[in-house]
Amino acid sequence: MSLHGAYDPDNIFAKILRGDMPSVKVWEDDDVLAFMDVFPQSEGHVLVVSKTSTARNILEIEPEALARLTAAVQRTARAVEKALKPEGLSLMQFNGDAGGQTVFHLHFHIVPRWADRPMKGHGHAPMADAEQLKVLAQRIAAELD
Amino acid sequence: MSLHGAYDPDNIFAKILRGDMPSVKVWEDDDVLAFMDVFPQSEGHVLVVSKTSTARNILEIEPEALARLTAAVQRTARAVEKALKPEGLSLMQFNGDAGGQTVFHLHFHIVPRWADRPMKGHGHAPMADAEQLKVLAQRIAAELD
Repeated sequence: MSLHGAYDPDNIFAKILRGDMPSVKVWEDDDVLAFMDVFPQSEGHVLVVSKTSTARNILEIEPEALARLTAAVQRTARAVEKALKPEGLSLMQFNGDAGGQTVFHLHFHIVPRWADRPMKGHGHAPMADAEQLKVLAQRIAAELD
Repeated sequence: MSLHGAYDPDNIFAKILRGDMPSVKVWEDDDVLAFMDVFPQSEGHVLVVSKTSTARNILEIEPEALARLTAAVQRTARAVEKALKPEGLSLMQFNGDAGGQTVFHLHFHIVPRWADRPMKGHGHAPMADAEQLKVLAQRIAAELD
C-alpha cells in the first residue's frame, strides 16, 4: 500500500488491539501497547503501537498520540537495554510498502543489536516460539521504570 | 562506542550545531535542526537532531526534548513526502556502534523510498554534491507546514 489511503480496521495490529488476535504483551496503558514481534529480527525485538490512533503512518498520526507513542518507545527501549544488555539498539519505523511497512497501523520497531549477530531482514525472519517470546517479554517488563 | 558513556562535544553534529562545520539546512527552530545527510541512502535523506539535548541516544534524551524532536521528525517527513513524492518513507534511529550509529549525538534518519530504487547501506553511500543537496533542501523547506 502507498502512503495514502484508508485505514484497514482488519489489519493484524487492529485485531491484536481488539483482542481478536493473540500477542505476547510486554506492557500497555490506555495509550499504547508494547508487544513482541513474532518474526523477530533479533532476540528481544519489540513493537510499540498507539491504541488511540488509527494512523497508518508517521504522516497521519495526531501530535499528542505521537508524543505518547515515542515516550513509550523510549520507556520500552530502556527496559530492553536493562533486560538483555544489547550492545546497540536500532529503532525503525516504516511507512508504505516501498518504505518497508508490512502492517498498516503505525508502529515502531525496537531491535536489540549485538556486533557478532547479524540482524535478520525485515520480513525474512522465521516465526519465533511463543513460549520463548513470553520469557523475553517478562524479562523486559521486569525492567520497566 | 557502546550505549553508555560520555557525550563527545566534538562529534560532527555538535560541530554543525555550533557552526564550526557546514551543513545543508532544511529548517530549524530553537529546539531542532533538520539538515541533509551528506551520505544520503536515497535522494532526499534528511537528519533531524535536538539542539537542546546532549543525549547520545534514545536511552538518554529528556522526555520533553524527545517529544519536540519527534514532532519535528513528523513535520519534516510530511514536507519530504510533499516535495519528493516518494512511494515510502523509512525512519531509522540507531543507538551504539552495534546498532548502526556513527555519530554519537541522537538523530533520526528520514529516508525517502521508491520501490525501484534500492536504499543504499548506512555508512556505504557516496558523498553527495552540496549544490544538489541545497536544491533538495529548498524543495523540502518549501513544503513545510
